[in-house]
Amino acid sequence: MSGRLTVIGLGPGPDGWVTPAARDAIVEADIILGYTAYTNRIVPQAHQRIEASDNREELSRAQRALTLAAEGHNVAVVSGGDPGVFAMAAAVFEAVERGPQSWRALNIHVEPGVTAMLAASARIGAPLGHDFCAISLSDNLKPWALIERRLRLACEADLVIALYNPASKARPAQIIQAFDVLKSCRAPDTTIVLARAVGRPDEDIDITTLAKVDPSSVDMRTLVIVGSTATRRIERVGQKPWVYTPRFAGDA
Amino acid sequence: MSGRLTVIGLGPGPDGWVTPAARDAIVEADIILGYTAYTNRIVPQAHQRIEASDNREELSRAQRALTLAAEGHNVAVVSGGDPGVFAMAAAVFEAVERGPQSWRALNIHVEPGVTAMLAASARIGAPLGHDFCAISLSDNLKPWALIERRLRLACEADLVIALYNPASKARPAQIIQAFDVLKSCRAPDTTIVLARAVGRPDEDIDITTLAKVDPSSVDMRTLVIVGSTATRRIERVGQKPWVYTPRFAGDA
Repeated sequence: MSGRLTVIGLGPGPDGWVTPAARDAIVEADIILGYTAYTNRIVPQAHQRIEASDNREELSRAQRALTLAAEGHNVAVVSGGDPGVFAMAAAVFEAVERGPQSWRALNIHVEPGVTAMLAASARIGAPLGHDFCAISLSDNLKPWALIERRLRLACEADLVIALYNPASKARPAQIIQAFDVLKSCRAPDTTIVLARAVGRPDEDIDITTLAKVDPSSVDMRTLVIVGSTATRRIERVGQKPWVYTPRFAGDA
Repeated sequence: MSGRLTVIGLGPGPDGWVTPAARDAIVEADIILGYTAYTNRIVPQAHQRIEASDNREELSRAQRALTLAAEGHNVAVVSGGDPGVFAMAAAVFEAVERGPQSWRALNIHVEPGVTAMLAASARIGAPLGHDFCAISLSDNLKPWALIERRLRLACEADLVIALYNPASKARPAQIIQAFDVLKSCRAPDTTIVLARAVGRPDEDIDITTLAKVDPSSVDMRTLVIVGSTATRRIERVGQKPWVYTPRFAGDA
């Protein structure tokens, strides 16, 4: 089979954060598939076709991409951020595992990208400078009890926590529940970063605390970072503080 | 003050993984500081000066960079991967906090990059496709008891675990101890990925299990990924398996 499938991370938004390797992989593709918000960032060339679809259709999009690659096309599937972090790469490999044996012989390649937590972190300092975890709050694909359990254990481990998919119109309650869990195990003055639309024209970053955070200001375009007990704020005159987590840590 | 300090992530190695924004920031700098392994990746222009230093001198390098920026220079500090993940950004903000008040007024900017775990993940599938954590095994800056505690809790939370700085010549024992901890809480057939020198000419990726992994094959250039109970392998004829962690998860 001469077809090819590349799963590509476009980074959080601006062209300056799209790697040259990702850019090259897009240029080489015949057919580009993805969620509309990401395919909208690509200007197709004359030989290229774009198939945009809804956010919730990850598995069917992956199956469609694999089918096209098996037919001999050079297919690109695009994600925002990094495709391997709560994005299309896992859906593609799920589809491979469930699909015909012949798909296992396909030429599949993943192009990494800058994932949202790295971009959000860079904007305000270095909150991920020490041990951290990334947890998705979407319970479309896992039970809420598991999410809550992971939040409690991440607290206990004193990890910095990056929350992906913290809320959507269909799921306004999760982020409220998540902050309630965190309030039971971290101090009220724990630093909270709400990084909305990082790298986009409407970027908005709020640095607050667990006691003061307003869950209603969190939406599906927000990446939430919850500090550990070691995370520090450097206050500045007339500017937002910097937030960082030191490389060293105290006793367990 | 007209000086400026940019902390830049060069990605794991190849030029194709250096973002255009990182590339631009390097071009604009007058003085570039970093660990020799990273400054060696930069060809200085006529107006540029490079100050290379040893891996262990992070804080003094940060202080030097801030001093130069305060004098009016346009300074770049380079890291491999992403500068915010176990790298120079945290050291720079530590130095700011400890340093003179005037440093808080400096123009400091962090340019994110592709961190090693994303590149390693992309090479073999999507092992970070679901909740995960990143833990540094270096106990130069934190007690081993804390590292061990975090590994146990990450196990209990059933997170995929990326281990940074798993071993060095000065610390050959940590990775042995870490695998011993993991053996006490994860099954023998847990997938282990040893991703050495990802993106470099001598890249070497080994996919094995917790029962079979040989700690002596892990060095300071290796990124280790430990699967969760959900992580799956897709076997292929005549090729390495793909490894991925599904987006869905079972009951807690």
